[in-house]
Amino acid sequence: MAKQLDLFCFLGSTYTYLTVNRVESVAARKGISLRWRPFSARSIMLEQNNRPFVGKPVKLNYMWRDVERRAMRHGIPFKGIPDYPNDPDELASRVASLAATEGGCPGFAKAAYALWFVENKDPGNVEHLAPVLARMGKDPDEVVARANSERIRAQYATTTDAARSMGIFGSPTFVCGEEIFWGDDRLEDAIDWCIGR
Amino acid sequence: MAKQLDLFCFLGSTYTYLTVNRVESVAARKGISLRWRPFSARSIMLEQNNRPFVGKPVKLNYMWRDVERRAMRHGIPFKGIPDYPNDPDELASRVASLAATEGGCPGFAKAAYALWFVENKDPGNVEHLAPVLARMGKDPDEVVARANSERIRAQYATTTDAARSMGIFGSPTFVCGEEIFWGDDRLEDAIDWCIGR
Repeated sequence: MAKQLDLFCFLGSTYTYLTVNRVESVAARKGISLRWRPFSARSIMLEQNNRPFVGKPVKLNYMWRDVERRAMRHGIPFKGIPDYPNDPDELASRVASLAATEGGCPGFAKAAYALWFVENKDPGNVEHLAPVLARMGKDPDEVVARANSERIRAQYATTTDAARSMGIFGSPTFVCGEEIFWGDDRLEDAIDWCIGR
Repeated sequence: MAKQLDLFCFLGSTYTYLTVNRVESVAARKGISLRWRPFSARSIMLEQNNRPFVGKPVKLNYMWRDVERRAMRHGIPFKGIPDYPNDPDELASRVASLAATEGGCPGFAKAAYALWFVENKDPGNVEHLAPVLARMGKDPDEVVARANSERIRAQYATTTDAARSMGIFGSPTFVCGEEIFWGDDRLEDAIDWCIGR
């Protein structure tokens, strides 16, 4: 049976841009299956008073330069610093939560991040999100309505609760058994742990 | 001429334990010379209201597990979580600042961290620090007096000012030209950058 790695991801996270663009190939190369679990990292961070960049311009500035350099390192496009934070209502992450139940999460996550990082358009804005969904062959109105439904809101909250109970506090977090690995830069550690179990 | 990497280090930092135990071999393997620059990361973090672990038990808990796993990965001893924070007067970092001018910084930094992480003794406590200095062939009283002198305090402050002006906000930070790389997990990125220039 293939080993499994859970990917807890929040689409408002900056470093998660790197992950959504490289996690599939890294995992596939090692024969590991991925389970995408979109959750509200923002809620947990606010609960824990974990605000890594608010009021911290020096650290914020470094983060963007680091994301840019890591994107270059991994051959991922970086077109300048996009607007941040975005998606105040977490619509994009809820669409990802919906997509996770239907197998389309990786494709949607990449498309949403391309919108944000390459076009500097907020994927939480329906005006920008709709054409992305249409290009994926989806009915934008229906997808947005379902992402806003009580069922998907509850599913998203349930995954957030699961993350909280595991000690997850940010995105991306990789989970292998009871071990959690936070940050795109821990992907390789998580993969190695998963293989070695 | 050998390429140079500056290592800004603060001996009260947890992840810097990993760096002091592996940076020399990594740099030597790539033919890069290291300049050790002890500074007060704590001062800069307090100025910037950057308190990654105070009041954040979930993140603190993760940090220790991450340090433990990374220590295992690199073959560095980890004997359990030592007391933290330590060295309130930053004596150990000032001894490192003194040692940096005399070529003994790597050895002292490793010895101070072994005291902290392996023996769970605060290297900022003269009672624990003195035997370490004696084993290194130093006169503990003389070293402590010099580390407490106005000259070394000024040198330590000057390096801290230099760090601040470069946008450094934590330890360890690797500097190559104008590029800064924060965190033990960025050592390889910094080395690659340094080689590629």
